Amino acid sequence: MSDVEQVEAANTAMYEAFESADVDRMARVWDDVDPGGLVCVHPGWPMLRGRDHVLRSWSAVMAGTDYIQFFLTDVQVSVVGDTAIVTCTENVLTEVTENPVGASAVVATNVLVRRADGWRVRVHHGSPVLGRLVDE
Amino acid sequence: MSDVEQVEAANTAMYEAFESADVDRMARVWDDVDPGGLVCVHPGWPMLRGRDHVLRSWSAVMAGTDYIQFFLTDVQVSVVGDTAIVTCTENVLTEVTENPVGASAVVATNVLVRRADGWRVRVHHGSPVLGRLVDE
Repeated sequence: MSDVEQVEAANTAMYEAFESADVDRMARVWDDVDPGGLVCVHPGWPMLRGRDHVLRSWSAVMAGTDYIQFFLTDVQVSVVGDTAIVTCTENVLTEVTENPVGASAVVATNVLVRRADGWRVRVHHGSPVLGRLVDE
Repeated sequence: MSDVEQVEAANTAMYEAFESADVDRMARVWDDVDPGGLVCVHPGWPMLRGRDHVLRSWSAVMAGTDYIQFFLTDVQVSVVGDTAIVTCTENVLTEVTENPVGASAVVATNVLVRRADGWRVRVHHGSPVLGRLVDE
């Protein structure tokens, strides 16, 4: 697989871990080499820093979600050296959500780092799309 | 100046360009080597791609803002090779804002790239903080 394909697979794995509410898989998705450097923003949330804080938030979010399915669109991957930037739109189908604004579309910026065993997530920043642009 | 100091200065320049509604300075802040790769998410907005689209959005946002001042807190910079990731909280003081949720705090992830003439912004992702965490 090319770098871009590997990054796409690692990015998709984060959403699959959420869909299956798999805490162990979510833990493997995120970097553990530099645990203090992890950053996560759930839609509408403040910024969470550090592996413990981030993984605890995922456990809480997944425990509060009965069903969720992601359809990722507009996925763009940029790899420079050992850093990858993924930007995409998350089209979300859900029964119960912790999202305070009930957004059906979320835009995300994810930063991944290349480690000995593959690409791991270092930053996930999701934000709710609250309106439509006039010229779109 | 160290890499981190240079990146912090380039990051701050984006907010200063907004504060002064300086379209030319904002244009210099953003990368022009790979114009198609630029990404900007204003709080609550969909994802905008490409230099023309991004700069037009800034012109519209700045034209619609009478007064704005940023107090950046929790600024963390990570530099790997020619890529820098800045995460921070934007504490915003404003008179008129285009922000549809009137958030007073925004969290941001910014990606900068090292070019021959310095660090330039490639990705800016700002999102509104809509609530408070129970355990914060």
